[in-house]
Amino acid sequence: MPSTPADHTIFIPQALARVRADSPLVQCLTNSVVTGFTANVLLALGASPAMVDIPEEAGPFARIASGVLVNLGTPHAEQRSAVVEAARAAASAGTPWVLDPVAVGALPVRTALARELLELRPAVIRGNASEIIALAGAGAGGRGVDSSHGVEAAEESARALARTTDCVVAVSGPVDFVTDKVRCARIAHGDVLLTRVTGGGCALGAVMAAFAAVHEDRFAATVAAVAVYTVAAELAAKEASGPGSFAVSFLDALAALEESDLAEPTVLS
Amino acid sequence: MPSTPADHTIFIPQALARVRADSPLVQCLTNSVVTGFTANVLLALGASPAMVDIPEEAGPFARIASGVLVNLGTPHAEQRSAVVEAARAAASAGTPWVLDPVAVGALPVRTALARELLELRPAVIRGNASEIIALAGAGAGGRGVDSSHGVEAAEESARALARTTDCVVAVSGPVDFVTDKVRCARIAHGDVLLTRVTGGGCALGAVMAAFAAVHEDRFAATVAAVAVYTVAAELAAKEASGPGSFAVSFLDALAALEESDLAEPTVLS
Amino acid sequence: MPSTPADHTIFIPQALARVRADSPLVQCLTNSVVTGFTANVLLALGASPAMVDIPEEAGPFARIASGVLVNLGTPHAEQRSAVVEAARAAASAGTPWVLDPVAVGALPVRTALARELLELRPAVIRGNASEIIALAGAGAGGRGVDSSHGVEAAEESARALARTTDCVVAVSGPVDFVTDKVRCARIAHGDVLLTRVTGGGCALGAVMAAFAAVHEDRFAATVAAVAVYTVAAELAAKEASGPGSFAVSFLDALAALEESDLAEPTVLS
Repeated sequence: MPSTPADHTIFIPQALARVRADSPLVQCLTNSVVTGFTANVLLALGASPAMVDIPEEAGPFARIASGVLVNLGTPHAEQRSAVVEAARAAASAGTPWVLDPVAVGALPVRTALARELLELRPAVIRGNASEIIALAGAGAGGRGVDSSHGVEAAEESARALARTTDCVVAVSGPVDFVTDKVRCARIAHGDVLLTRVTGGGCALGAVMAAFAAVHEDRFAATVAAVAVYTVAAELAAKEASGPGSFAVSFLDALAALEESDLAEPTVLS
Repeated sequence: MPSTPADHTIFIPQALARVRADSPLVQCLTNSVVTGFTANVLLALGASPAMVDIPEEAGPFARIASGVLVNLGTPHAEQRSAVVEAARAAASAGTPWVLDPVAVGALPVRTALARELLELRPAVIRGNASEIIALAGAGAGGRGVDSSHGVEAAEESARALARTTDCVVAVSGPVDFVTDKVRCARIAHGDVLLTRVTGGGCALGAVMAAFAAVHEDRFAATVAAVAVYTVAAELAAKEASGPGSFAVSFLDALAALEESDLAEPTVLS
Repeated sequence: MPSTPADHTIFIPQALARVRADSPLVQCLTNSVVTGFTANVLLALGASPAMVDIPEEAGPFARIASGVLVNLGTPHAEQRSAVVEAARAAASAGTPWVLDPVAVGALPVRTALARELLELRPAVIRGNASEIIALAGAGAGGRGVDSSHGVEAAEESARALARTTDCVVAVSGPVDFVTDKVRCARIAHGDVLLTRVTGGGCALGAVMAAFAAVHEDRFAATVAAVAVYTVAAELAAKEASGPGSFAVSFLDALAALEESDLAEPTVLS
């Protein structure tokens, strides 16, 4: 059970190697803005994306998928049925699934849906500070996908949410915070350009599903997903002239990431 | 009230600086082909995109958004309800909203919808020549998103539409034409590569919503949006080897655009 | 009627020139993940994409389109109605249409739909080995969009499907296989990076629709589509540092492809 920064430094490159070797099948029920980028991020990582998000297919597929992402960015009526079907099937089959409650708290339809989904035992919840605070019941959400709260302000909410739901909670921001109810970790990598590419946060949820698919320890898997993702972003930023070239370099960097890129400690205690 | 080319030359860089400083929240109800590119264009510009396009959320969100884009490229049933809800809320709250009547005239469902939306007082209408002619009732539309008419042929229709709807009308083409019922301007920038990237026109509608969000003078704001967008396209074309690298460079150029890039007059009388 | 490798070597550059000269209007009813990339591929090729995929518009548009693509990747309820409407109108108007039965066999909704669509006489069916085997009734499909069968294993199924449906069948893989009930061809170009970009296969279906739109001989047109697409992929791979830059270079390469790039025989007997 990796807990300390030193543990994570050993675990993270192994975790990435395992994702690449197993190429987990990650079912994504995600918003209409980021489907393409999310699939490309999973392909660059070495996982196998499948965007199966209609009723009557989403449930059966969640039973054979290795991991599932449910992102509430554009929750159209048909997709609302499909995500409940998929989450229920995943919970019943033991398939780890990640909940990304985009703009929860600020908008009514998805807020009700997120509450319903919380009962279906996600393995991981990923959001920005405002979303995690709203989901934990401690605030009223942000504006769209922006976060009006800092990550530190959300740490208490994240811990509370992890306790009540018994899952891993990850708060994205300049310093990412990951916690289960016992352990916690902070990852201070990434680049501000990641916030200038649509799907920069959403695709991380899919990467968490890929890591959770192949590792029993969901906390360590989530920390590894964040570390891999944000270290690749740092490498990409060095090559980029702006947000357009950054998105391209980021996919290249994810695909090319080597063990040596992850040799330094990336996790703070 | 900027009216002359010299006025615009002073106003355009100020307008861009204001968009970047205020980072207006732009709600996009747009077609399924260009959602990602549109969001990336807004992010590169410095605005905050939010693709809130389902019934029961679209209306409430339009009340808090700074600007709204309604693009009719793929008007699915649920989105048709959502765009009417959003346009109505925007009109009632005084939020400026942009109508992009993609392929209006040529296809029945969107043509009926566009007529309904015209009653809800858009701040700006953006289309190609065929679409503007069709919307003004003067013709039968083009084929899909292509324009079979030249911009000049649409000038009379644009003026008539601006008079009857009391909004700004922008016709996209090799030379863009913008008019309210009093003033008009022509912008002769851009690059043919912009027509080889899907969303090249659609994302401009979102940029117009961002500029209208932070400037009372909707005519001057629309002229500035076109100038910024097409000058960035020219700079990007210089770096590009084809349509793929052009799309990337265009996002980089939008993000990097400096006051000096806009120092020369970009608007014709 | 091009049949031999030598025939194809003469025909392929002519076929590409014809697509570029005619710029066929290709209606795409495709999955939500790849709409943007598919449109960009068609634009880079020189064709005109139009994503008209709602009921009451899809049928009328299929009568005026030059070619139609029906891809079953994310068959939402409204799109299911629209694809049947479009395929029926295309069949009745003589518009060639391409069926891409993504993940057929593995998932129930699309499998039933694919069976219904087969009755509406597609000009071309494109799939990976598992999909073609499943559609021919000889197997139970793959996992999502991956193919768990090799192309060779699917050749018999492809021939059988071509015989029973009287259409061209194309099996994508490291060596592509194309057959009508009489002729067959193998194309051994492309690059593994094409499988690391989402839509790498789906967009080929749209390119086949563009080629079928302007050539009576649908078999030769399909072979040419595969050759152009996979030769462009090879050229792009030489410029690429990974899957992100490959997708960009691929669009550039498609747009820049010259007759001399197609001068060597690309088709095996």
